[in-house]
Parts: sequence; structure tokens; C-alpha cells
Amino acid sequence: MNGKVYLVGAGPGDPELLTLKALRILRWADVVLHDDLVSPRILSHAPKKARIYNVGKRCGQKSTRQEAIHFLMIELARQGLEVVRLKGGDPLVFGRAGEEIQALREAGIEFEVVPGVTSVLAAAAAAEISLTRRATASSLLIMTGHFSGADDRPLPDLRSLLASGTTIALYMPGPDARITASKLAAAGLALQTPLALVSRASTPAQQISLTTLKELPQIAMQAKPSILIIGDVVRLSQNDRFRLETLYGQPLPLQPATATSQSQLNAHQAVNHE
Amino acid sequence: MNGKVYLVGAGPGDPELLTLKALRILRWADVVLHDDLVSPRILSHAPKKARIYNVGKRCGQKSTRQEAIHFLMIELARQGLEVVRLKGGDPLVFGRAGEEIQALREAGIEFEVVPGVTSVLAAAAAAEISLTRRATASSLLIMTGHFSGADDRPLPDLRSLLASGTTIALYMPGPDARITASKLAAAGLALQTPLALVSRASTPAQQISLTTLKELPQIAMQAKPSILIIGDVVRLSQNDRFRLETLYGQPLPLQPATATSQSQLNAHQAVNHE
Repeated sequence: MNGKVYLVGAGPGDPELLTLKALRILRWADVVLHDDLVSPRILSHAPKKARIYNVGKRCGQKSTRQEAIHFLMIELARQGLEVVRLKGGDPLVFGRAGEEIQALREAGIEFEVVPGVTSVLAAAAAAEISLTRRATASSLLIMTGHFSGADDRPLPDLRSLLASGTTIALYMPGPDARITASKLAAAGLALQTPLALVSRASTPAQQISLTTLKELPQIAMQAKPSILIIGDVVRLSQNDRFRLETLYGQPLPLQPATATSQSQLNAHQAVNHE
Repeated sequence: MNGKVYLVGAGPGDPELLTLKALRILRWADVVLHDDLVSPRILSHAPKKARIYNVGKRCGQKSTRQEAIHFLMIELARQGLEVVRLKGGDPLVFGRAGEEIQALREAGIEFEVVPGVTSVLAAAAAAEISLTRRATASSLLIMTGHFSGADDRPLPDLRSLLASGTTIALYMPGPDARITASKLAAAGLALQTPLALVSRASTPAQQISLTTLKELPQIAMQAKPSILIIGDVVRLSQNDRFRLETLYGQPLPLQPATATSQSQLNAHQAVNHE
């Protein structure tokens, strides 16, 4: 009898942001096929006898080809094994799960998708920015940083989306903030557009920068994964902070990512939480 | 000494889709202020001595006013209590957390945001639809069903977003599918636009309908909360299913929401998972 494949979201980084369901399924797993950037503390929930394979892309190394992942999932399930395909964040957001689901369906392998906390939610939680806000931001656009038009479709009109009260979250904006800034400027965004750049949200290495498109090129190279939050909700959050900082005479602390890390966030200034 | 307020996401419905961090914080809570639609099984994680208040909007009853929630959070924290403000899904997506964060900052109360699994992720997992897909869907727009222009901003251009390969997820499309359908048609969507309507995703009462804008008015009234997924990713998923159904000669089963529920999903037909 065939085993089952679980497409499971591991959450944004913090091992505590795993769901109870993901934990239960991991504890049963015969095999775990995981992406890069999944915490070893999450992988340690798998049984000692479980086989654990990193099938993610590594810096400077060849990635495991998508077809090879399909082959592994299907073959291992046909051996009667319970297979956990563990992805960072949520499996259905920028996770290639569409292709994996199609391959599993074609092979007649039973599967189940277990959702997870996608990265922008952890980034916004870290920066204490509500992604929607009554009368200000009624929608949220999630897109990748690779938005230079790889296929032949037109880009979403980012400027008019911002004007309509849409918050934009850019996943994986790339390590070079200057390139990201020039792409956003080319897409029509004003230089005073408020931005929050959050990298490694929810981990001890979390970094948060509140800035503007004009000042984005001065931000140091960010560690992966990072998220750029764009729109009026960032400005509102900055305004709140500035007003209160003036009131209290000192910068407001952001909550550190862990109980032991100690840091403060200054607006318009990158701060390392390590 | 003041207590701390935790703005915590309870996830989309299934008590197992709570995060480990939310569970830990709930187990410490002195007070829980929760929205409607948070499962009693989640609330049962709070200590027996904890005070539990439903501050959500109830059908036919007056909602607890937002200012009253702010007052409660701040007063209870000033009494030195650990306060959990528990919201459905993720706190920073359609959760009024922006106003609550502002109130807590102004009162000088320490707080922390704990992200959760937002509803569209559970809806997509239930319907087995990848929200993004290489070369087809490179972005995701999350918006509320109340998109009739309550404020004076222009609406996002839904038709051009779909044309640019954006998947649209409508939260709370409202109980009457006819109204939703006419609003979407008025926004310029073609009648053959593929849709997936998922209500009470991840719970035993989950319902999934794969349909088109043309057929949406025939869908029965949906239980709250529901999510409408719009775009080519729905069509791709339907195509996969149709092709394989032809191949295998019978409808492909969708995974039931619980191990005990038994149901199958037929495309273009609403199915109750109860």
C-alpha cells in the first residue's frame, strides 16, 4: 500500500511558529524532504529513524532539480513510506507546490497540504505593522522580488495599487537593495514611498529597517530570507512611533525576536538583532 | 508592574493549526480577549483560572466597540495581568490590530504580535490550489469582500491584476453569492473567470465549490468565514482534475478536513464536508 505525502509549511523561521498539526505529522514521518532555511530544531521533531534530505537550493551549489523532488516523493510513497515535504513559510505561496501537487495527482499518490505561517506575517509582526488598516489599507499584494517580467505578462501596476490603499509585500527582494530600489522606481513608485525591510523575521538574526524608497539603496545587504513591506501602513506606523518618541523623548523599543536578544529599532536605520 | 499584551493569531479554524508559540502564550494567560469563530478547543488551552471574554461581533447583537477592547487590554495589563488578544487567522490581516497597536503604544503598554495562519492559506490547502505558480501566477492579492468603495479611494483594477497573473483572494465575500458575483462582474471580471469558494476551511464543516463567475450566483449561501479564490491557478487545478478524472474515470477525492469526515469534491458543484 502506498504511503501518503504531506506538503507542510514550516513557518517563517522561529521553530515555535510551527503549527501543532505540522508537529504531529513530522513526529510520524518516515522521510522528510526539506527546503533550505528550515530550522534544524524543526527537523529534530522527526523520529530518529526518519530519513532527512535537504532538497533545497544551496548558495553556489546546484539545486536539486524539481523533477528529482517529484521522483523522490513518488518513489518513497510507493515504498509505503509517510513522506513530509517540508517548505519554508506556507507551501502554497512561492513554494512550487502547484507542480508537486500535479505530479502527485498524476502518479495517483494520496497527499495533504498543511498550511503554515507565510513570511510576510512574521515580518509584519516583527515590525509591528498591521498589513491592513481601516480606511487606509484594504488589501495586500504579495509578490516576488523577481518581478522584472520573466514571462510575457504585464506587471501589476504598483503605483495605482498603492494609490488604491493596497499594501505591497515583496518576497525575496534580492540581496542588493540598490537593484530593488531602481526596479521599484522604474515601476513608478515615488521616492518618498515608505518601506519596511525585514530579514530573517522571527529568528534571533532578525533585522528591521524602516526607510523610504529614496534611502533604500543605503541599506546594507540583507540576509535571506527578507521581505519588503511597502505602503501607507508603514508610514502610519512610523508616524505613531515618531509622535510617541517625541512625547517620551527616546526611541520606542521593538520587541526582540528572542528573550535573550537585546536591541532597539531606530527609524530610518538598520539594526542588527543578533 | 504592568503586564504584557500578546496580539495572537489563532489560525483559520482547525485547533491544530495553532502555532506552538500561541499555545505556550495561551497556557500562561491571565486573561483572554477573543474574537468570534475562535474554537473552544483553542480557548481550553488557557489556564482554568484565566478570565475569558468574547469581544467579537455576534450575529444580531451589538459588537463590543473597538474602544472598549482597547480599554480592556490596557486596564487589565495595568493590573499586572498577562493579556492575550486572540484573533482568528493572523492578527495583522483584517484584524483591526493597527488600531490596537496604536492604543497600546499610546498607553505605554508592552506588547508582542504572534503571527498565525491566515484564512486564505487554509482555504487553498483545502482546495489543493497553489496560490502562486511559476509562469502563471506570480502574485497574490488579498482583499475583503467589502470592496464597494466605502472610502474615496479607487478600487484596485481586478481585471488587469488577473491579466498580469495575480491570484485574487476575497476574504468575507458575504453570505449572498449573487451580490458577490454582481460586484465582481461590475469590476470587469469575465463570466468564465474560474473561482474556488471555500467556507470554514480546515474545520469539519468545510465546504468547497469550484465554479466560475457565471455560475457563482447558483452557489448556496456559505457559512462564515469564507474565502473566494479567483484566477488562473483555479483553472489550472480544475484542468488537472478534469484531465485525470477522464483518465481514471471517476472524480478525484479531495482530502476531508478531518479523518472522520467522508466526502468527494465534484468540480462545479458545492459539496458539504459535514
